Amino acid sequence: MDEHRYLILAEGHFGPESSKTANSAIRYLPERVLGVVDARNAGRTVQDVLGFGGDIPILSSVEEGFERDASALLIGIAPQGGQLPESWRSPLRAAMAAGLDIVSGLHFYLSDDPEIAGLAAERGVRIHDLRKPPRDIPVATGRARNVDPLVVLTVGTDCNIGKMTAALQIRRSLVDNGARVGFAATGQTGILIEGWGIAVDAVVADFISGAAERLTLQAAEGNDVVLVEGQGSLVHPGYSGVTLGLLHGSMPDALILCHQPSRSCVYGAEGAYDWVPLPSLTESIRIYENAIAPLRESQVVGIALNTWDLTEEEAQAVIARTTEETGLPATDPVRYDPAPLSEAILKCRSKKVRKYESTGVREYERTGIEK
Amino acid sequence: MDEHRYLILAEGHFGPESSKTANSAIRYLPERVLGVVDARNAGRTVQDVLGFGGDIPILSSVEEGFERDASALLIGIAPQGGQLPESWRSPLRAAMAAGLDIVSGLHFYLSDDPEIAGLAAERGVRIHDLRKPPRDIPVATGRARNVDPLVVLTVGTDCNIGKMTAALQIRRSLVDNGARVGFAATGQTGILIEGWGIAVDAVVADFISGAAERLTLQAAEGNDVVLVEGQGSLVHPGYSGVTLGLLHGSMPDALILCHQPSRSCVYGAEGAYDWVPLPSLTESIRIYENAIAPLRESQVVGIALNTWDLTEEEAQAVIARTTEETGLPATDPVRYDPAPLSEAILKCRSKKVRKYESTGVREYERTGIEK
Repeated sequence: MDEHRYLILAEGHFGPESSKTANSAIRYLPERVLGVVDARNAGRTVQDVLGFGGDIPILSSVEEGFERDASALLIGIAPQGGQLPESWRSPLRAAMAAGLDIVSGLHFYLSDDPEIAGLAAERGVRIHDLRKPPRDIPVATGRARNVDPLVVLTVGTDCNIGKMTAALQIRRSLVDNGARVGFAATGQTGILIEGWGIAVDAVVADFISGAAERLTLQAAEGNDVVLVEGQGSLVHPGYSGVTLGLLHGSMPDALILCHQPSRSCVYGAEGAYDWVPLPSLTESIRIYENAIAPLRESQVVGIALNTWDLTEEEAQAVIARTTEETGLPATDPVRYDPAPLSEAILKCRSKKVRKYESTGVREYERTGIEK
Repeated sequence: MDEHRYLILAEGHFGPESSKTANSAIRYLPERVLGVVDARNAGRTVQDVLGFGGDIPILSSVEEGFERDASALLIGIAPQGGQLPESWRSPLRAAMAAGLDIVSGLHFYLSDDPEIAGLAAERGVRIHDLRKPPRDIPVATGRARNVDPLVVLTVGTDCNIGKMTAALQIRRSLVDNGARVGFAATGQTGILIEGWGIAVDAVVADFISGAAERLTLQAAEGNDVVLVEGQGSLVHPGYSGVTLGLLHGSMPDALILCHQPSRSCVYGAEGAYDWVPLPSLTESIRIYENAIAPLRESQVVGIALNTWDLTEEEAQAVIARTTEETGLPATDPVRYDPAPLSEAILKCRSKKVRKYESTGVREYERTGIEK
């Protein structure tokens, strides 16, 4: 999977807010994306549609992409519920017929579909279901609270708001500052980018926090900071269980709260959650800190704002207002330098180290688990 | 499944706190339980070990049970993690060889095990995996908040504390008072007793609240009250995600908080959670009410205490103290009359009806979903 050159299928859905997996592959693996298939936008570039991504072309069909020497077709959207749209079988068939592997983040496992699995076997191509979890996940027991590195979880006022992106931007900034950083990928796109991880929304419900715990222990080895990719939100009527399990499994020392200032209601197809107003930032901070308080003390130490749909002036104003309202460092870590957030994290890390040194250094827990 | 006469396998684990599924089958389906297999206790009666259950015999082996005309072997314990102990294959083989169906609430699906499924096919017996969820559960959208009946969820200060039992006892009392009551079974034992339901801890994580929503809508049809069986606890490091998803999917009008006064830490094998003290009752009430507050107002309206391990005097004292501490009706609905709790629920129901009548009655939502 690590060496693939991707053609991305995003037919009918390529856009800044509607093709999460495609957009993240373009942001973090740009040299490995050869084209995006979406007939509505054919002829334009990725930059034209997303505002980043440069000259990567948008194509009218999978067939048009074959000449570009792709080695895999990546399904670039994650529809709510994660099922396979019936209309996508035809491009999948075409891709496999042309010898491409298929990489998918759907809840629906392509490798379990008789037609698709049969065709893959016949053509000798592979199917990577990014969300398919391992079978041996344990029930969490809170072990992640004992690791040596500082564990930071990105949480959000909503789903699909930039928790993975914030974590990846912050990582880059931490690494630039010389920190050793482990990244615990918890969703299909993070797994695609990192090459390992567990989609915590796809595990059997009793094992959500067990999966988060295992990932955190694995990412801890040899590192100063573990960044855990957040999922969903504690006030999302559909996904809140995943969010709480992730919080209690990863047992973070600190939280980064992600928010999109232009959003006022919970995100969902067809306005399904328009009846749920997003809590204010101070209220959201309280919700997350209270949810973990019975297990450990943990605090929101910075706010990552997603300002892609605001003007420069609006973005600057909302960042200033956020710091004023919460007393916390805030920035848009994609649009601007993530330094305010990475500095807040490094400060927490130093504090944790000093605490160890004054009380006797704890070795981080040896996990014995293979990545 | 509804007509089975059960032999219950609880080898090495039959006891008041260690064989949840067995004990509930004995409490609620006593006329259909012919014997319990646990060699350690062979020769005693169920009453001797549990303090209820009458003359049902404890047997030394599955073979000894065959003469009693059982039609199914019920796996009577739910070990943490839900896997199949290797040592149980032999009694399962023996049961199938004798023509018994197998009923199991394990996370490990016996029907997916090649050896067991093969033997079942060969012998013409059936395997009922109570926890195996349907495949078409949707993501929750909060529809359960709009049903006509009063929706009541039993929540707990801990797992394995009596949430299902409290709900079943309260149901009996509500029915005695002429209420039409729907019961939404959310765990393997509830499903065994009711004959339908979904084990919400066994669904894929993104669909916990979707499963709870579907169950609530189904149980609402034609009823005055829906009792939703609770799971886990919001402060359980292993299972909190299931608990929050269930809360947000069922969208209860009211909560019954279940607690065992003798317990001070979160329950788990080998003291795995001894580091997590149970919050006080008033703190627990706050935790649950706050967790649903962003989606709807809902209040704890009564406390169900599990006093099986207390003397009569201690039980009475703790009940009085609980009401004093919380200002809420409290009782042990197994040991005593559940009336204080069912009356609190009927009062809420009347209030909801009056509110409808003053604002225009809402029809409960037609679900179109078959049970």
